[in-house]
Amino acid sequence: MASQLPPFKHFNVTFPQEYVAHVETNRADKMNSFFEAMWVELRTIIDTLSRLPTVRAIVFSGAGDRAFTTGLDVKAASQGILGPSSTTDAARAASQMRRVIADFQDCVSSLERCEKPVIVVMHGYSFGLAIDLSTAADIRVCARDTKFSVKEVDIGIAADVGTLSRLPKVVGNYGWVKEVCLTARVFGAEEALRVGFVNSVLDTKKQAVDKAIELASLIASKSPVAVQGTKELLDFSRDHPVQDGLRYTGVWNGAATQTKDVTSAILSGLEKRAPTFEKL
Amino acid sequence: MASQLPPFKHFNVTFPQEYVAHVETNRADKMNSFFEAMWVELRTIIDTLSRLPTVRAIVFSGAGDRAFTTGLDVKAASQGILGPSSTTDAARAASQMRRVIADFQDCVSSLERCEKPVIVVMHGYSFGLAIDLSTAADIRVCARDTKFSVKEVDIGIAADVGTLSRLPKVVGNYGWVKEVCLTARVFGAEEALRVGFVNSVLDTKKQAVDKAIELASLIASKSPVAVQGTKELLDFSRDHPVQDGLRYTGVWNGAATQTKDVTSAILSGLEKRAPTFEKL
Amino acid sequence: MASQLPPFKHFNVTFPQEYVAHVETNRADKMNSFFEAMWVELRTIIDTLSRLPTVRAIVFSGAGDRAFTTGLDVKAASQGILGPSSTTDAARAASQMRRVIADFQDCVSSLERCEKPVIVVMHGYSFGLAIDLSTAADIRVCARDTKFSVKEVDIGIAADVGTLSRLPKVVGNYGWVKEVCLTARVFGAEEALRVGFVNSVLDTKKQAVDKAIELASLIASKSPVAVQGTKELLDFSRDHPVQDGLRYTGVWNGAATQTKDVTSAILSGLEKRAPTFEKL
Amino acid sequence: MASQLPPFKHFNVTFPQEYVAHVETNRADKMNSFFEAMWVELRTIIDTLSRLPTVRAIVFSGAGDRAFTTGLDVKAASQGILGPSSTTDAARAASQMRRVIADFQDCVSSLERCEKPVIVVMHGYSFGLAIDLSTAADIRVCARDTKFSVKEVDIGIAADVGTLSRLPKVVGNYGWVKEVCLTARVFGAEEALRVGFVNSVLDTKKQAVDKAIELASLIASKSPVAVQGTKELLDFSRDHPVQDGLRYTGVWNGAATQTKDVTSAILSGLEKRAPTFEKL
Amino acid sequence: MASQLPPFKHFNVTFPQEYVAHVETNRADKMNSFFEAMWVELRTIIDTLSRLPTVRAIVFSGAGDRAFTTGLDVKAASQGILGPSSTTDAARAASQMRRVIADFQDCVSSLERCEKPVIVVMHGYSFGLAIDLSTAADIRVCARDTKFSVKEVDIGIAADVGTLSRLPKVVGNYGWVKEVCLTARVFGAEEALRVGFVNSVLDTKKQAVDKAIELASLIASKSPVAVQGTKELLDFSRDHPVQDGLRYTGVWNGAATQTKDVTSAILSGLEKRAPTFEKL
Amino acid sequence: MASQLPPFKHFNVTFPQEYVAHVETNRADKMNSFFEAMWVELRTIIDTLSRLPTVRAIVFSGAGDRAFTTGLDVKAASQGILGPSSTTDAARAASQMRRVIADFQDCVSSLERCEKPVIVVMHGYSFGLAIDLSTAADIRVCARDTKFSVKEVDIGIAADVGTLSRLPKVVGNYGWVKEVCLTARVFGAEEALRVGFVNSVLDTKKQAVDKAIELASLIASKSPVAVQGTKELLDFSRDHPVQDGLRYTGVWNGAATQTKDVTSAILSGLEKRAPTFEKL
Repeated sequence: MASQLPPFKHFNVTFPQEYVAHVETNRADKMNSFFEAMWVELRTIIDTLSRLPTVRAIVFSGAGDRAFTTGLDVKAASQGILGPSSTTDAARAASQMRRVIADFQDCVSSLERCEKPVIVVMHGYSFGLAIDLSTAADIRVCARDTKFSVKEVDIGIAADVGTLSRLPKVVGNYGWVKEVCLTARVFGAEEALRVGFVNSVLDTKKQAVDKAIELASLIASKSPVAVQGTKELLDFSRDHPVQDGLRYTGVWNGAATQTKDVTSAILSGLEKRAPTFEKL
Repeated sequence: MASQLPPFKHFNVTFPQEYVAHVETNRADKMNSFFEAMWVELRTIIDTLSRLPTVRAIVFSGAGDRAFTTGLDVKAASQGILGPSSTTDAARAASQMRRVIADFQDCVSSLERCEKPVIVVMHGYSFGLAIDLSTAADIRVCARDTKFSVKEVDIGIAADVGTLSRLPKVVGNYGWVKEVCLTARVFGAEEALRVGFVNSVLDTKKQAVDKAIELASLIASKSPVAVQGTKELLDFSRDHPVQDGLRYTGVWNGAATQTKDVTSAILSGLEKRAPTFEKL
Repeated sequence: MASQLPPFKHFNVTFPQEYVAHVETNRADKMNSFFEAMWVELRTIIDTLSRLPTVRAIVFSGAGDRAFTTGLDVKAASQGILGPSSTTDAARAASQMRRVIADFQDCVSSLERCEKPVIVVMHGYSFGLAIDLSTAADIRVCARDTKFSVKEVDIGIAADVGTLSRLPKVVGNYGWVKEVCLTARVFGAEEALRVGFVNSVLDTKKQAVDKAIELASLIASKSPVAVQGTKELLDFSRDHPVQDGLRYTGVWNGAATQTKDVTSAILSGLEKRAPTFEKL
Repeated sequence: MASQLPPFKHFNVTFPQEYVAHVETNRADKMNSFFEAMWVELRTIIDTLSRLPTVRAIVFSGAGDRAFTTGLDVKAASQGILGPSSTTDAARAASQMRRVIADFQDCVSSLERCEKPVIVVMHGYSFGLAIDLSTAADIRVCARDTKFSVKEVDIGIAADVGTLSRLPKVVGNYGWVKEVCLTARVFGAEEALRVGFVNSVLDTKKQAVDKAIELASLIASKSPVAVQGTKELLDFSRDHPVQDGLRYTGVWNGAATQTKDVTSAILSGLEKRAPTFEKL
Repeated sequence: MASQLPPFKHFNVTFPQEYVAHVETNRADKMNSFFEAMWVELRTIIDTLSRLPTVRAIVFSGAGDRAFTTGLDVKAASQGILGPSSTTDAARAASQMRRVIADFQDCVSSLERCEKPVIVVMHGYSFGLAIDLSTAADIRVCARDTKFSVKEVDIGIAADVGTLSRLPKVVGNYGWVKEVCLTARVFGAEEALRVGFVNSVLDTKKQAVDKAIELASLIASKSPVAVQGTKELLDFSRDHPVQDGLRYTGVWNGAATQTKDVTSAILSGLEKRAPTFEKL
Repeated sequence: MASQLPPFKHFNVTFPQEYVAHVETNRADKMNSFFEAMWVELRTIIDTLSRLPTVRAIVFSGAGDRAFTTGLDVKAASQGILGPSSTTDAARAASQMRRVIADFQDCVSSLERCEKPVIVVMHGYSFGLAIDLSTAADIRVCARDTKFSVKEVDIGIAADVGTLSRLPKVVGNYGWVKEVCLTARVFGAEEALRVGFVNSVLDTKKQAVDKAIELASLIASKSPVAVQGTKELLDFSRDHPVQDGLRYTGVWNGAATQTKDVTSAILSGLEKRAPTFEKL
C-alpha cells in the first residue's frame, strides 16, 4: 500500500494492520518540534490518507522516547512566522500574519476534516502545538509519563492554531480549560484522564501505540460507510443546535443507509462471523 | 388519572405518586426491542403527558429483568425501515429514507420537547435506540448490571435518531464520545457514571426505578412554572450562545415570574411548610 | 493603586499582589446576600478593574465564615424586583420585568466581559446568585465546607441571571446540570470537583483564598496580551462553531502577535529569567 | 387523484393539471377569515399533499371575489385563542398561550415544510394571517385589486404566526418591512411588486389564478428530485451561513444526483423533447 | 414632558406630538459632524427615551439646511480616536482601539436597542457616520437633495460602527451594498429609494421631517405593547433562523397577548373609534 | 506584472490598469462552457491574485460575443462528474459525489475568499455555473443582451456549487429567487437590474467590460487596507448576527486602523490630491 504514497521527508508512514495507517513525526533529535515545512507536509499526508480507499483509521504519534512534540521549533519560528515582519505598517503586518495563521490552522485542521478517524498517541513532552494537533484528532491515548501544557502564554501569545477553539468542546470542564490555558501549567496523564482530555493512559509509550493501533483496527473492522458517517455527524452536531444535527443526519443517512454494508453487517451478526466491507 | 388516558398497546402508563407518571415499555419477551408502531405510540404518550396538568415529572423504563431495550427489532426493521426500497432510483430511495428518519427522530424527540422533565431508568441491555432515547431525556439513572452500547456501526449505519446529535452535548468528554460511537464497544455502569452519562448507579433495577420515582417526586413538589421553565431554558441555552440564552430567559421570565407560585414558595419557606402549587 | 479607585460601599477592594485585585463582598452579617444596589456596584467595580492597567487578574470572594452568598436578599427582593408590579396589565408587568432582568444580567455578565481573568472563591452557603456569579467567572475554587445549590426553583422561578445559560457550558455533564437545576438539591465540594464545577477544593476558606491569589499571581506574571487574548478567544469559541473560532483567532492574533511581549517572553525563556511586560 | 384524499370541510382541493394541486379556502361569505379548525385542516391538507406522489406543485388561493382572507375571524378568536384565559395566574396563562401559538405556527409552517413548492394567489383583502400564510409559501402572485396589510398591531398584538420571522427574509427592504409592520398601513399590488413581496401582478383574480397554475405546471414539468431539492436547499441556506449551505448541499446532492432524472433530462434536452420523470 | 429630561448639550429634544419625541443634532455650523462627547450624549438621550413611558416613537434629524451629518469630525478625531496611540506596541494599541470602537458601536446601537421605533430624517450631506446611525434606526426618510456616501474607505478605514454589519441586512441588493461600501461613491435620494435604503423621498427637508413626525404619530397611536413587540421580534428574527424566530415570538407573546390593549383595540375597531392605551 | 504569473491554459490574465487584473475565460468556441480542469485552474489563478501585492481589484469575464458561459460542458460532465459512478453501492457513490462537489464548490468559492474585490462582467448566455460564479463575486455588471438562467433543474439537479446558498443573500426578493431557481426560466438584463442581481446594465459587452475596469480602478485607488477589510467585514456580517458582526469588526479594526493609510488618506483629502498607498 505504501507504494501508492509519495515519499515523505519529516514523517514515517506505515501500515501496521490492514486498513490502518500509522503516521509518525520523525524528528526525535529535536523532540519532534515543528517548523513550517513539517505542518505543510503533515497536511499533505493526512489529506492523502483521507481519500485512500485502503485506509480506514489513522494512528498519529511522535518518534523517540522523549516527546510527542515540544511544539513550535521556537528558533525556526523566530526566523519565520514569529520573526520580524517585512513591513512596519501594523495593518499590513496583521494582514500577513492572518494569512500565515490561516494556513497553519488549515494544516492542523486536516486531522479534523480527514474522513477517517485519527487516534493520537501522546508521550513525554506534549506542549503547545501538541495540544492543537491532538484536539483536532478524534481520540487521544497517552503514556503515563506525558507532560502536557497549553504552553502558548509562556511565549506571549494566545494559542492560535486550534486549542482555544477546540479544547472547550473536547473537555467539558470549562474552569479547568481556562486554568490550563491561562497559566500554561504542566499537567500529567492522570489529570488528563480525570478531566476527559485523554481516553486512556498506558504505562509506556509502546503500550500506548499498541493500544491506539488496536483501537484503529477495531474501527477498521466496521463498515467504513458507518464509521465515516459517524465522525462527520458528530463533528457537525458539535457545532450546531440539536435540531440542525438531526436534519443533517437525516439527509446524510438518506444515501448512507442504502449501502450493502447494512445487509452484510446484519447477516454477519446473525451468522456470528466477521463481515467484510467494500473499500471506500 | 389514568382514566383520562386512552389505553396503550405497547406501554404501561401508571401514576406511582401524585404528579408523577411512569411509562414502561412492555415487551420484555423481546428484550423491549422496538418496531415502528412502538415509537409512534411512545410519541403519542409523551405528547399527551406533556400537556396533562396532573403530571409534573415522568419516569421512563423497560419491563423485565434483561434489558431496558436492545434497540431496533432488527428483524422487523429489515422488513420495514431498513428493508428494500420500493424504488431503484437512489435519489427517490434517499427521499423516502429521509422521511422515515425524520418521523422516527420526531418520535424520539418527544422526550426532549416534553414540557415536563423525563427521567430514564436503564438496566441490562441498553443498546442502540436505548442511547438515542435516553439522551433525549433529562436525567439518566441505571442499575449496576447495565450494558450500554452505541451499537449502530455494528449494523452498518451511523446512528440516526439522536445519539450523534445529542451525546456530545450530554457528555463533556468528546474523545470518549467518539470512541464509543466509532467502536460500538460495550461499557458498564461505572464508566457511564465516571464520564457523566448517567446521574447515578443503583444496585438493582428495582432500586433504580425507586430512585427515579423519588427524584420525580422531588421535582413534582416544586412550582411547575419554575420546573418547566428551567427545562426549557436549559435546552434553549445548550443550543445557543450565552447572550442569546440570557435574552430568551429574560423574555420567558417576564411572564413566568408573575406567577403566584413565587409568593407561595417564599411564604412556605418562611413558614417552613410545603408549598402547594396550582396545576399547569 | 487603590487610590485610583473611588470608595465602594458594599465591597472591599484590595491589591494583595502586584497586578492582582481582590474584590470581597462585605455583608457578612447578612450572609453576603445581595440587593439591587450591590450588584450595580459590583458591575461598576468590575468594569473599572477591567480597564485598569495595574490589574491583570481578579479574585472575588465573600466576607465572613458562613457564606460566599446565600443569593438574593429575599426580603429586599420581595419589596423590589420580586415585589408587586406597578401595573395590573400582564404585558406591561412583563415588560418591566424584562428590563429589570436585563439589567441584573448585565451586572452579573460584567465578570464574563471583564478583560482580565476572574477567580471566584466559594465557601459556606453558596446558593442561587452564587451560582450565577461564579459561572460568569473564569475559574472557581472552594472550601471543603461549601454548600452549593441552584436554589431558584425553591422560590418558584427558573434561574434568570445566568446559571441556566452558562452552567451547561461550564460543566459537561448535562444530566447532572438538569438534576441540580430541577431539584435545587444541595451538593458539596467533592461533588462539585468530581463533575468539574470547581477547579480545586481547599480545606479552609483561608486556604481557598490563598490558592486563588496564588493562581491570580501566576496568571499576572504572564504577558497580559496573551492572557487577555486567551480569555476572549475561549469565550468566543465556546459560543461559535470551531471554524468561526479559528477565523476570529486569526484576526485577533494578527494584531496581538505583533507585541513585544513575544520577544520578551522568548528571550526570558532562553535566559531562564522572569520576563517583564508593559502594562495593558 | 382526488379520490386518494379524504373530503375536506373548509377547503376545496382540485387538480387542474397533471401533478398540480389547487387548494382553495372555501369561506367566501366570511371573506375567508380563519378560525382554529380551518388552520388545523389546512395543515392536514398540506402535509398530505407534501407526500402525495401525484403532486409536484401546489396553488393556494381563496374563494370569492372579495378577499384572499381578512385574517383571523376576530369574533371566533375572541371566544377562542384571544379570549379569556381559564386561569388568572399570568404565568399559567402565558404557558397556555405559548402552546396555542406554537400549534398555530405549526399549521402555517406546513406551507414552508411542504416538500413541493407552494404558490399563493392573493386578491382583495389580504390582511393579517394572509401575510403569515403567504410568507410561508414559496411564490406570491396577486390581482391588481389586492389590499395588503400586516394588520396585527391594529388589534393590539405583534404578529405571531410567522410574518415577523419571515417577512424580513422575503423582502430585502428592512425599512419598508418595519414600516408596514409598525403602522399596519394598507399597501397595494404595485407597491408589493416594487419591494419584491409578490412575483407578479395580474389584472384580475382569475388571471392571477391562471398565472399561478401556469407556473405550477411549469415547475411540475421538471424533475421532482431537482425541484424538491431546490426548495429544501434554498430554505436551509436562507437560515445558515454560506459555508453551511454549501456543506448541506453537497450531502444532499450526494444522493440526489444519482437519480435517473439527470440522464433523462440531458437526453431529452439533446433530443429536444419533453422528459418524463418517475413519481416522487 | 421635557421637564422630565435633563438638559442636553449637543441635541435638541422636543415633543412635537403626543407620545412622539424629536431628537435633533444641534451643530449645524459644523455640518452636524460628530465628536466623541456627542455620540456619548446621543446614547444617553436614546436610552432615556427608550424607557420614558410618555414616548412611543422617536424622530431623529440634524439641524440646518446643509447636512444630516458629514460624519466624524475628522479634525477632532485625528486628535482623538484616530489620533496617535499612547503606546508603540501594536498589540496594546489594538487593544485600546478595540475598546474605543466597542464603546462607539454601543452608542450607535442605542438606536437599535431602543424599545421604541426610531425614524431617521436625512438631508444634504449624509456621509459616513450618517449611514451607521441610520441603519441602526428602523425607518429612513430623506429629502430629495440628500447626498449619501459610505465614506470610510476614503479615509483609509473599513467602516466600523455598524454600516458593514447592518447595511447588508437593510438593503437586499448585496452587489449594490458592496459597490457603495468599496467605492465610497456618492448616491442620491432616488437611488436610495430604488434599492430600498430609504422608505420615502420628500421634496424638502421640512417635508421629510413632517413625514417622519406623521409616521411617528401613526405608530404612537397603536398599542405600545404591540409596537414594541413588533420591533423586538423583527430584529430578533433578522438575526436568527425562522424556527428560532417563531419560538421567540411564542414566548414573547405568551405575556404580550395578555394585555388589555387587545380587547381595547378590538372594541374600538368594532365601534369605529380611536382606542386609547395605557402607558408603557 | 504578468511575468510574476505562470502561464495559464484556459484563461487570459492581463493587467489593463495599475493594480487591476482582468481574468478572461478563453473558450469562446465552446461558449466558455466549463470542464473540470478549467475550474481547478480558475481557483489557482484567483488564489494567486488574492495574495499578489500588485493587484487590488479583479475583473472576471468571458471571451467572445456569445456567452459569459453556458455553464457546465454537459458532454464532458457526462463522462466526468455527472457520469457513471465506479461503484454500484449508493452510499459509496454518494461519498464520491460529495468529494467531487466539495472540490468544485471550493473552486467557485475562491472568488468569495479572494482578499480583493471581484467584479464579474456577464453577457450573452449566462446559464447555470454563470450564476454560481457570479454570486460568489462581489459586483455584477452585464451587457443588455445577457440571457440569465439558473439552469440546473433543467438537467435534473438542484444547483450545487453555490447558487442556492448565495442567491438568497445576494437578491432580497425571495419569491423571485424561488421562481427562477424552480423554473429555470430565462431572464434578461432589465429584470436582473430591477431585482438587484446586477449593479448596472451597459449597452454592449465592451461597454460592460470598460465599466467593470473603471469600477475596479476606482476601488484600486483606495487604501487596500480599507478595501480588503470592507470586503471581509461585509461577508462576515452577511453570515452572522449584527452583534457578532460588530464584535468581529472591532477586532479587525484594532489592527487595521493602525495603518499609515489613514493619515495618508486624510492628508490627501485636506490637500485635495490623490493619496498613494503602500502595497498589501
